[in-house]
Amino acid sequence: MTISRPSGRAPDQLRDIGIERGYTAHAEGSVLVCFGQTRVLCTASVENRVPAFLRGKGEGWVTAEYGMLPRATHTRSDREAARGKQGGRTLEIQRLIGRSLRACVDRKLLGERTITLDCDVLQADGGTRTAAITGAYVALVDAVRWLQARREITRDPVFGAVAAVSVGVWRGVPVLDLDYAEDSDCDTDMNVVMNDGGGFIELQGTAEGHAFRREELDAMTALAAAGVTELVAMQREALAR
Amino acid sequence: MTISRPSGRAPDQLRDIGIERGYTAHAEGSVLVCFGQTRVLCTASVENRVPAFLRGKGEGWVTAEYGMLPRATHTRSDREAARGKQGGRTLEIQRLIGRSLRACVDRKLLGERTITLDCDVLQADGGTRTAAITGAYVALVDAVRWLQARREITRDPVFGAVAAVSVGVWRGVPVLDLDYAEDSDCDTDMNVVMNDGGGFIELQGTAEGHAFRREELDAMTALAAAGVTELVAMQREALAR
Amino acid sequence: MTISRPSGRAPDQLRDIGIERGYTAHAEGSVLVCFGQTRVLCTASVENRVPAFLRGKGEGWVTAEYGMLPRATHTRSDREAARGKQGGRTLEIQRLIGRSLRACVDRKLLGERTITLDCDVLQADGGTRTAAITGAYVALVDAVRWLQARREITRDPVFGAVAAVSVGVWRGVPVLDLDYAEDSDCDTDMNVVMNDGGGFIELQGTAEGHAFRREELDAMTALAAAGVTELVAMQREALAR
Amino acid sequence: MTISRPSGRAPDQLRDIGIERGYTAHAEGSVLVCFGQTRVLCTASVENRVPAFLRGKGEGWVTAEYGMLPRATHTRSDREAARGKQGGRTLEIQRLIGRSLRACVDRKLLGERTITLDCDVLQADGGTRTAAITGAYVALVDAVRWLQARREITRDPVFGAVAAVSVGVWRGVPVLDLDYAEDSDCDTDMNVVMNDGGGFIELQGTAEGHAFRREELDAMTALAAAGVTELVAMQREALAR
Amino acid sequence: MTISRPSGRAPDQLRDIGIERGYTAHAEGSVLVCFGQTRVLCTASVENRVPAFLRGKGEGWVTAEYGMLPRATHTRSDREAARGKQGGRTLEIQRLIGRSLRACVDRKLLGERTITLDCDVLQADGGTRTAAITGAYVALVDAVRWLQARREITRDPVFGAVAAVSVGVWRGVPVLDLDYAEDSDCDTDMNVVMNDGGGFIELQGTAEGHAFRREELDAMTALAAAGVTELVAMQREALAR
Amino acid sequence: MTISRPSGRAPDQLRDIGIERGYTAHAEGSVLVCFGQTRVLCTASVENRVPAFLRGKGEGWVTAEYGMLPRATHTRSDREAARGKQGGRTLEIQRLIGRSLRACVDRKLLGERTITLDCDVLQADGGTRTAAITGAYVALVDAVRWLQARREITRDPVFGAVAAVSVGVWRGVPVLDLDYAEDSDCDTDMNVVMNDGGGFIELQGTAEGHAFRREELDAMTALAAAGVTELVAMQREALAR
Repeated sequence: MTISRPSGRAPDQLRDIGIERGYTAHAEGSVLVCFGQTRVLCTASVENRVPAFLRGKGEGWVTAEYGMLPRATHTRSDREAARGKQGGRTLEIQRLIGRSLRACVDRKLLGERTITLDCDVLQADGGTRTAAITGAYVALVDAVRWLQARREITRDPVFGAVAAVSVGVWRGVPVLDLDYAEDSDCDTDMNVVMNDGGGFIELQGTAEGHAFRREELDAMTALAAAGVTELVAMQREALAR
Repeated sequence: MTISRPSGRAPDQLRDIGIERGYTAHAEGSVLVCFGQTRVLCTASVENRVPAFLRGKGEGWVTAEYGMLPRATHTRSDREAARGKQGGRTLEIQRLIGRSLRACVDRKLLGERTITLDCDVLQADGGTRTAAITGAYVALVDAVRWLQARREITRDPVFGAVAAVSVGVWRGVPVLDLDYAEDSDCDTDMNVVMNDGGGFIELQGTAEGHAFRREELDAMTALAAAGVTELVAMQREALAR
Repeated sequence: MTISRPSGRAPDQLRDIGIERGYTAHAEGSVLVCFGQTRVLCTASVENRVPAFLRGKGEGWVTAEYGMLPRATHTRSDREAARGKQGGRTLEIQRLIGRSLRACVDRKLLGERTITLDCDVLQADGGTRTAAITGAYVALVDAVRWLQARREITRDPVFGAVAAVSVGVWRGVPVLDLDYAEDSDCDTDMNVVMNDGGGFIELQGTAEGHAFRREELDAMTALAAAGVTELVAMQREALAR
Repeated sequence: MTISRPSGRAPDQLRDIGIERGYTAHAEGSVLVCFGQTRVLCTASVENRVPAFLRGKGEGWVTAEYGMLPRATHTRSDREAARGKQGGRTLEIQRLIGRSLRACVDRKLLGERTITLDCDVLQADGGTRTAAITGAYVALVDAVRWLQARREITRDPVFGAVAAVSVGVWRGVPVLDLDYAEDSDCDTDMNVVMNDGGGFIELQGTAEGHAFRREELDAMTALAAAGVTELVAMQREALAR
Repeated sequence: MTISRPSGRAPDQLRDIGIERGYTAHAEGSVLVCFGQTRVLCTASVENRVPAFLRGKGEGWVTAEYGMLPRATHTRSDREAARGKQGGRTLEIQRLIGRSLRACVDRKLLGERTITLDCDVLQADGGTRTAAITGAYVALVDAVRWLQARREITRDPVFGAVAAVSVGVWRGVPVLDLDYAEDSDCDTDMNVVMNDGGGFIELQGTAEGHAFRREELDAMTALAAAGVTELVAMQREALAR
Repeated sequence: MTISRPSGRAPDQLRDIGIERGYTAHAEGSVLVCFGQTRVLCTASVENRVPAFLRGKGEGWVTAEYGMLPRATHTRSDREAARGKQGGRTLEIQRLIGRSLRACVDRKLLGERTITLDCDVLQADGGTRTAAITGAYVALVDAVRWLQARREITRDPVFGAVAAVSVGVWRGVPVLDLDYAEDSDCDTDMNVVMNDGGGFIELQGTAEGHAFRREELDAMTALAAAGVTELVAMQREALAR
């Protein structure tokens, strides 16, 4: 079937993906990830302490915070720091990023350290959370390498790779990696986080228009699996540079 | 295969479900829903105004708020009102409830009114969000009937039914409607919101231990579909009383 | 004199009182108290720590928190957790409940423990604070019995009993235990907390219409004393079941 | 009976009372009230608007705010503005001041105006809330006179006078107008707000040590009535200067 | 040149300055400072602890908090404690006061203590921050003398003196110590904090109308230097009383 | 005299300056400004409304918000949105940026519009506020050009140019444009905002070590004037591209 997505891409085609390491100077890991016009700065910061609930247990912690610059979007949104609280969407996304990355870390091997992944959206065009997870993984690996280079840890606590992509049903056709125009106009929107072994880590699907059927779910997860495979290859390539 | 779930239930067996209408006196809809030991009070409140972004558009709004009494759980948790903010989990759940119920409402037919579904957990034993959605649907229908009885609206804005259930993989076996003990000890946890036509409205799966595979996803969604079918029948029966 | 209170009760007549122990499962004490249509869930939670100002002094603490479900009332009120702070009325009531119950506890005998009484109003029809005090006393005794059953404490730190009731002057007649309709239409409103020895623990009277005179004060306190005597008997009976 | 109060005063003796009008320049009413070492600056501010719930009803509003300078007390307490919220005690006191003064104002005659009474404690030595009410009444009258002088209102909306004093039981003896040393060491503490006709407006008694008995209540209210009579005379005298 | 400032003062003339020590009873230092109609209560509170970042370093801390009573100004402004946060202007001023006073304290000699300077504006007529700095210095010295009198410290940690004054360009003429009327109508406003050796500690100039030129800057700093010399003499005199 | 600044620059030498327009896609003006390693993203957003205090006056508003990504600095700092408030330093800086840019805008010509300048620090190495002002000016001009291109305004409301630079005294030598290493180790730090006519808009000097003398002030302002002249030329060049 031939359809014409607003973006002109094939249904199973990712946007242009960019993963630039060392984007800023101070962080132990710093990655600018681009999914088309969506640009997210992901930094990994290592600290030698853990949250209260983990103290003295010999385990580390991996957590994430997410933010959107006020004018990352088409119209300016309020600055959350000025409003005095993070919105529900922000909290939901940062919880998702944190859970996703903890899924590939052996926290015993990390030791009593916290790695915080700050994902700040410089420009938004749909898919900021999936771009953030994909980029944060690379920043996390860089931070771990930094710890290894300083011989603070010996065994690598990161196992496998984690990447994420959105899928949706646009005018009846399952499509991969929606941009803002497609996302605003689609029936179903699903974010899929997977590992490099093809396992699902998180699956969050929402019917925007009509409820989605089993066969649509199947088609979307298949698209996502293929997309994540491509993204993992790009992460690997970026980490090899 | 025979397994012995902590609850002693069969893998595809719901807990005892209770749906009690008219639980409190003032609200336009008031339902106490029980999924085993989980008890959630769902009230529907009708107000003749809409949020700012909808004003003058001739459409209504359906939204939800979620709360947990401090000692609904095994150990006391802080009161969110005293801490001065709702936690990320709370915001995430109430956003989910709101989206799920908006999926069965024609907001044009509702007119410029807001129906707020307050879901307050009196006792928690796993699955509070799925119980809340299942009960809130019944409270919503009662509120709509109240509007119809007063002839404020003529055509029913609710189409179909919405219910939700959790599924998971417990020691390798897909199981339905996890209680707290099962939930704490399972590999994957998924909340599924569906309509009475078998369509998916929300699907949120999280790998707790290992990443889940495609066949596990399939088994879980099948279990969920069967569970929701039962729940919808109970909603219908409760509404017929 | 014959008057016709809106409720149809005699001036010195309490509403139907219900005290149901073990209402929820997790708390060390859990009581649903009903003063007519007013229903408050009072739970007592025991924790092995005390606030900073008591640390190391060998004394315990008894405190209370109060909340009202958004649709406990005729019209929905904002959720305090969502607004980001507890209102002045809430803080005032929870301070009153805490002081009232500390008046019957030997905090040395309690040891370095905190008992928190959460009083959450499921349905409001006037007199929520007096119902809360009356019910919280029973929950407190249950929590102490739980400590004794586990032999964590040997001597009972609770001495005497505490109960509370409202009184008012309605169209010139002193009346006991006002419901919402009476409360909204009365000249004076007074909340009286007493112990089982007939002593006053708290007395809070407010002139709503005209200032009240000495003889009205006397009549109201006499009514309250009789009402509290009845309530203490009901507490005792509930605790004996 | 002869007792020796810490302050050396007779049981029925007020502290030295000072009521200084025109203490600051900008406010429509500005009074420094002193009850011994307790010093409270009470200003009355007139604004030509009312809270949302009164708009368009042709009635005015009288409200109060209370604050304590951080070092008004023996040891420094946190600044509420810096902590980001007013404490429960502050809210309770300012609600009391507001209710007390509304009891002597005909809000129809005031018209659609708000008078805000700011009561800021410069130095605290017990009885700040009763001093605040006593001083705020004088500031309120000055603000009303200012409105009358500008012919914004013609008939005086203030009827009668309102003053307040604390009473207590100190080592078994009922005493009037407790200072901090006496208050910290007494069995019962009661704040009494009365009008110039001898009627009670607010009565708030708290048993600190043992519960207080009926005859103690009687003795305390008699002391308070005499004290308020003296305070009303001083208010009148100050307003005549 | 002859000009007629709104205040009638000569361009280089300070307002009437008052520095009253021991204004309130509890604080270790308590000064009411008046710059004409501007009146600020400055208290110094000594506490035997330091902020977390200084713990264990053998150094003390000097900090300031600033507040304005709601009706210190011509029209009432919101109470910051009620709004739930301190405004940007408040934070900016209290940071300035703190930095200014730390510039004359040897924090090693102070030892692990914090001196907090609370500067609360009772009445505002321009120049509240410069009055606050000038008065807080005197309160600080009193607090240090209190520490020395108790032999808690032996060597005086305060070196030199610090005072502050505003200067501006009013209708083309540089003028000293602007009151509110002058400040509202001037082209440039500059706050200058200096020590008794003629050195600058803080200089904050803002062009209100046109940008100010180099020769205006020179004239203003010269005026300020003369003003501070006078103020330091008055501080010295007050401290000698 | 020859000194060796940590940066190796001559005392009067700016860092490498970069001004990149159109850095992000959605904002009406979007500039990445670099002062050496300091990188600030400045966006200008146009909205067709003004704050309440300006409504109906036919004037516009120009305001700024400032933020620092958590890992813009050497060690991670808390995210202000997560802490729930902006710190004093943030508020101080954004007030400074706003005032500085309003100094070159005729708000009548702007009409009832608000231009918000969001200055977000991606990487910090000293001088973030001066870089922000310098970059925000360019973003502001781009936003005004956007309004002119759409013919929403006809006459240019921006007059002149505004730029800013820091100066300091490092080991006795006045130096221009301090980086973080120099700033941490200098005696005096001054931020100077000037226009293209050589007039001062803001001058904020702070003695870090010893108080600074008149001749140091003179040397610093001379350095700043030369630096701003260079920066204004670079702004002009960037705007001509």
